[in-house]
Amino acid sequence: MTQHQVLINGQWRDSLGNKTFQAVNPATRATVEGTYPVSPWPEIAEALEAAHAATVAMRGWSGKRFARFLDAYADAIESRADEIVAMANFETALPVEPRLKNGEMPRTVNQLRQAAEAARDGAWAMATIDTQTNIRSILGPIGPVAVFGPNNFPLAFNSIAGGDFAAAIAAGNPVIAKGHSSHPGTTRLFAEAAHEAAQATDMPAGFVQLIYRTSHDDGARLVSHRYIGATGYTGARHSGLVLKEAADRAGKPIYLELSSINPVCILPGALEERAEAIADEFTGSCLMGTGQFCTNPGIVVLLESEAARAFLKSVAEKFEAAPVGTLLSGGVEQHFRAGIVHLQRAGAHIVTGNQPVDSSRFCHANTLLEVSGDDFVGNAVPLQEEAFGNASMFVFAKDEEQLVQIVESFEGNLTGCIYSETSGSDDALYDKVAPALRERVGRLLNDKMPTGVAVSPAMNHGGPFPATGHPGFTAVGIPAAVRRFGMLQCYDNVRSHRLPPALQDANPTGTMWRYVDGAWTQGNVGS
Amino acid sequence: MTQHQVLINGQWRDSLGNKTFQAVNPATRATVEGTYPVSPWPEIAEALEAAHAATVAMRGWSGKRFARFLDAYADAIESRADEIVAMANFETALPVEPRLKNGEMPRTVNQLRQAAEAARDGAWAMATIDTQTNIRSILGPIGPVAVFGPNNFPLAFNSIAGGDFAAAIAAGNPVIAKGHSSHPGTTRLFAEAAHEAAQATDMPAGFVQLIYRTSHDDGARLVSHRYIGATGYTGARHSGLVLKEAADRAGKPIYLELSSINPVCILPGALEERAEAIADEFTGSCLMGTGQFCTNPGIVVLLESEAARAFLKSVAEKFEAAPVGTLLSGGVEQHFRAGIVHLQRAGAHIVTGNQPVDSSRFCHANTLLEVSGDDFVGNAVPLQEEAFGNASMFVFAKDEEQLVQIVESFEGNLTGCIYSETSGSDDALYDKVAPALRERVGRLLNDKMPTGVAVSPAMNHGGPFPATGHPGFTAVGIPAAVRRFGMLQCYDNVRSHRLPPALQDANPTGTMWRYVDGAWTQGNVGS
Repeated sequence: MTQHQVLINGQWRDSLGNKTFQAVNPATRATVEGTYPVSPWPEIAEALEAAHAATVAMRGWSGKRFARFLDAYADAIESRADEIVAMANFETALPVEPRLKNGEMPRTVNQLRQAAEAARDGAWAMATIDTQTNIRSILGPIGPVAVFGPNNFPLAFNSIAGGDFAAAIAAGNPVIAKGHSSHPGTTRLFAEAAHEAAQATDMPAGFVQLIYRTSHDDGARLVSHRYIGATGYTGARHSGLVLKEAADRAGKPIYLELSSINPVCILPGALEERAEAIADEFTGSCLMGTGQFCTNPGIVVLLESEAARAFLKSVAEKFEAAPVGTLLSGGVEQHFRAGIVHLQRAGAHIVTGNQPVDSSRFCHANTLLEVSGDDFVGNAVPLQEEAFGNASMFVFAKDEEQLVQIVESFEGNLTGCIYSETSGSDDALYDKVAPALRERVGRLLNDKMPTGVAVSPAMNHGGPFPATGHPGFTAVGIPAAVRRFGMLQCYDNVRSHRLPPALQDANPTGTMWRYVDGAWTQGNVGS
Repeated sequence: MTQHQVLINGQWRDSLGNKTFQAVNPATRATVEGTYPVSPWPEIAEALEAAHAATVAMRGWSGKRFARFLDAYADAIESRADEIVAMANFETALPVEPRLKNGEMPRTVNQLRQAAEAARDGAWAMATIDTQTNIRSILGPIGPVAVFGPNNFPLAFNSIAGGDFAAAIAAGNPVIAKGHSSHPGTTRLFAEAAHEAAQATDMPAGFVQLIYRTSHDDGARLVSHRYIGATGYTGARHSGLVLKEAADRAGKPIYLELSSINPVCILPGALEERAEAIADEFTGSCLMGTGQFCTNPGIVVLLESEAARAFLKSVAEKFEAAPVGTLLSGGVEQHFRAGIVHLQRAGAHIVTGNQPVDSSRFCHANTLLEVSGDDFVGNAVPLQEEAFGNASMFVFAKDEEQLVQIVESFEGNLTGCIYSETSGSDDALYDKVAPALRERVGRLLNDKMPTGVAVSPAMNHGGPFPATGHPGFTAVGIPAAVRRFGMLQCYDNVRSHRLPPALQDANPTGTMWRYVDGAWTQGNVGS
């Protein structure tokens, strides 16, 4: 049996530990040949030492160095794209086409190249110069970043290739990647490419490192270690909160993406105008990736009416007619079923689905639930527990007042959508609903489902707790996501030749945007 | 006996509680006439309800509304400046001139007016527009902000007039101020002016509120309450960490300024070149405000040499010759003395001072300690405990390597200074010391003491834990300090008339800087 290695301090090598795990093919429930190590603490401590040494070695490095790595890595991934996609499909059962090959893979390399561009350009660091006081500041590298990747995006959020990885590197930091146990082979292939790119671009040995799994205690030790600058975590709420507590206690920034049910409010005029189109959009969005998106629309709020009931019926029929996708793992299947049971116990009723479908793979029927507005408002906390998978719950408000009350009972979410009638007949109700929803979500959408998360400078893939740990940050979108991994470094009266180039009078690239004496400029100071 | 009132929901009124405290004049140790209430939880809960109602009432308000309040408030303070300064002097023993009247008071109103300008201008919110995807984002108000002010800046960091207050308001949030118990009268006078300005500018009842003291448990409940958007805290490390734990657990951002010993490294060439001038600068900086600055230089690192010993002797003479200032409170006096004892137990020796001086007021002799580099490196954690007051400790490194080792053992600090010889003879050593110091401090200074904290857009009054809770933020400097109190609000496909004006195609002020399609511009979208 193949025993896979960890990547520590620039070397692929056998783990120091003797615990292992194996990947499972979700489409067959079959265990995959080859074991992956659970890294014991001494191995993690070595990774921390090596990452710290890398930080020291890279002090003062220009962003170009990191850009060169990111570009080389994107090229290396592209040259192995088919292999990586095939492995991701094998380990996650996400379809090769269009999902992995035409969606997530191009997004992943595009993200790395955008990060390279940001690193090369340098404007992400918001160089700020006050000539009157000769005080100058800039975001500098925060130090080694631990990245915990989620199960649901094996490529675009992979711990060693995804958004947090790209952002941490663009800010000039080494990364210790903790792969997700449900796709270790995919992560390993990425790490091979990352390691080759790091060697080809002369990066220090501890620049990119990979471990596959740790104990919970060691995870907490990792994120709170004195050598750690910050942590990026995307995954289940419970595990994330354990890491958050450890990191918070040590005063180490941790950026979390935990859970979100992404409410969709469909106002009466919109339903009257285009119920069928919305039902199609909703069904597509909700069942995409077998419902395993961070931004999956898990709750739909409607005003009680015949039209709303007809809409539910139409969606139910579409859910029944749609193929049942495969879930990412046995754990996801189990939690998904338990989540539906929790929602039922809290007062929700099954409209359709909620039965086993095919015991040869991990899956569960496309499931719709419903609950009255009265019940929702009376039991709002348990009724907002995420059932991660191909399910959604309809809430029927008895009147407009209750609809607003429902929205006001929402916890923090990544997204919130409002569908309204095109010519404005819903506008009065929109104006009641939108302000309450706005404060509870990172991204507010109109007439659009939330599952697309563009890599745009204006994107917010974030939101108030418990969607994330801080409502001021986004995990997607450059340059904002990069700034999470910077520390604010101020220079007061520092002699000019000792300043980082970005803070010297002459603009080092001739194009970098800097904030000089209260105005943004690409020019030199004094010009 | 006068029983002072709390300001809750737009009303000055008697506290619901029956516990009280009194201010103490530090210059006489005499209790001041008049009692201040300790607010019980129901009172704090009312303040939270009122602040939440204010947030709801102010949804969608233009920054101009907040600017109008801030300007009116600055005017109101100026019209009562003499009264406020006299009260602050009475309660803190900080000198009227130049400190309170010519330094802190102008800084306070200037800070409020800079915040007004930021609110009016709107660029602090970093409106970001991506026309290709029609995704737009901006920082919006985070919700009610609790501000805990420190003892040492009764004006410029006052909970209801200082930097955190100004920043939270500029971002469009109501503030619940928790005054510091050592200057309740000063805080009360500010609150009177704030209340008048809020009424004159038609702000909601719960917009600015004041309580004076809470139990520790109620403080923790306050910062973790569902209606709280964020908290600003400046003060002692222990109390701050209790609040941090509560806020972190609830996923509520908390910005802390906790403690800092602000190392100063004086390189040999600088000592040879200008020892006497540096000794004067250092003595002035260290004894200013009786050493009660967040940025007080609490540790001086030197290479062991005759010149370094002579420098110590010279500083010791200056410390002995300088008047002994009054400390802010009996608590500060007690902690200061205990802090010196802790440093002695950890291996430091008294060079001069450390005796009682005048039992009629709160004070303690100007105190210098010294410790060897070996002892410091061997016991670095207890030797970095802050002794808040008119004291500093010299560390003598046996060689350059140890000097760097000492710097590498520093915890996170607000500032770090390096003095070096003018023509460059220290440059080789500077290049070894500066990178290590850079990563451990928010603000790196050359040839300058750290106690001046300019209100500059490039200022960083922040730094790695335990100086603060997150190395990416500054408590001083506009617009950066304002951004702490914003949540990132993204609009995806939102109809243009529903967007906040700052995100519509037309630039609402004609001058607001916005980040449009990857470039900063003051223009309209598409122009």
